[in-house]
Amino acid sequence: MFRLYYAPGTCALATHIALEEAGAPYEAVLVDFRNQSQRSPEYLAVNPKGRVPALVTESGTLTETPALLCFVAQRFPQAELAPLDDPFALAQVQEFNSYLCSTVHVAHAHRMRGTRWADDPAAIEAMKRKVPSNVRDSFALIEHKLLKGPWVMGGKYTVCDPYLFTIASWIEGDGVDITKVPRVMEHRARMLARPAVRQAVAAEGTQIP
Amino acid sequence: MFRLYYAPGTCALATHIALEEAGAPYEAVLVDFRNQSQRSPEYLAVNPKGRVPALVTESGTLTETPALLCFVAQRFPQAELAPLDDPFALAQVQEFNSYLCSTVHVAHAHRMRGTRWADDPAAIEAMKRKVPSNVRDSFALIEHKLLKGPWVMGGKYTVCDPYLFTIASWIEGDGVDITKVPRVMEHRARMLARPAVRQAVAAEGTQIP
Repeated sequence: MFRLYYAPGTCALATHIALEEAGAPYEAVLVDFRNQSQRSPEYLAVNPKGRVPALVTESGTLTETPALLCFVAQRFPQAELAPLDDPFALAQVQEFNSYLCSTVHVAHAHRMRGTRWADDPAAIEAMKRKVPSNVRDSFALIEHKLLKGPWVMGGKYTVCDPYLFTIASWIEGDGVDITKVPRVMEHRARMLARPAVRQAVAAEGTQIP
Repeated sequence: MFRLYYAPGTCALATHIALEEAGAPYEAVLVDFRNQSQRSPEYLAVNPKGRVPALVTESGTLTETPALLCFVAQRFPQAELAPLDDPFALAQVQEFNSYLCSTVHVAHAHRMRGTRWADDPAAIEAMKRKVPSNVRDSFALIEHKLLKGPWVMGGKYTVCDPYLFTIASWIEGDGVDITKVPRVMEHRARMLARPAVRQAVAAEGTQIP
């Protein structure tokens, strides 16, 4: 039985959905950000980074969404969540997920987590002002170049899909005009039609716009 | 014959070293940041993100360092650059590389690429002031928790090693006191003893402190 540590509204939703899609045996454990539980000694013993997600497996604890997604795909191959035997196709999955974690999630994080990168309140406000254009530019690339359709990698659903769905659920809040990304919005609707997605979203109580 | 697009002093060095370690057939192509070649129409046709690295393979073009490293490991399995058949161990490789790309590289980038996240010059200066403590904190985690030694994953060299070596080559410039990370410094020395590392560093003309 795996344990997934999550908080609603975070990127943990991507792994949560992937575990549901895989039919993995797991329990979801809430880390309550409202009382800073992610900084508690108990949680730091699970994940010294003080972030979610963290996944406790039979072999040990893993963090970082792209790693967790690849792990779920490889650990439950019968779910066919990634092209495991094709190095180029698997690298394309990793490429998309790396872009989400290192560029898109980071662009978004400057809205509410600016204190990570500056202490000056005016600087933190300046970062917030640039979030809409940065997230919009990233999603323009996704809309026009990266999202093949109907799923991210084309005809086959992969672990890229829950990750895109999760980060795309933040873009209204980031100030992006969603009429400019109709294919991303269609992808959201397609995701919400999947039982695994609805199950993970409902279990977390995460709000999808 | 692969083509690796790189610029000296960038994270492209990690993939450059991995290609050398794998004995891969490739040529390295300089993207001259001094004249903004990464923004030229020719280069944007290769990589619309306008960044390095990009790797042109027999199947198409790939970007994002963690994806490229995993690709090289899987495409050249005889080089044994990752534990390909062990989902948990491979996820640990991805976890380390994801942390480098999404947290450590991002912390560093606020020193010279602050214009990505704010337009106000005072905000950009405020970001620079926080780089030393942010990079120091990341490297404290690497020094004390993540770097198993002698290689990142323990006894076996993996694609984590060239990536750590590359990002660790920036920490003096980021203002980190290297006497606080002796194991990272020993890792650098160990890397510089490898012919593949010396070959890639020399070919780029990249300066290692």
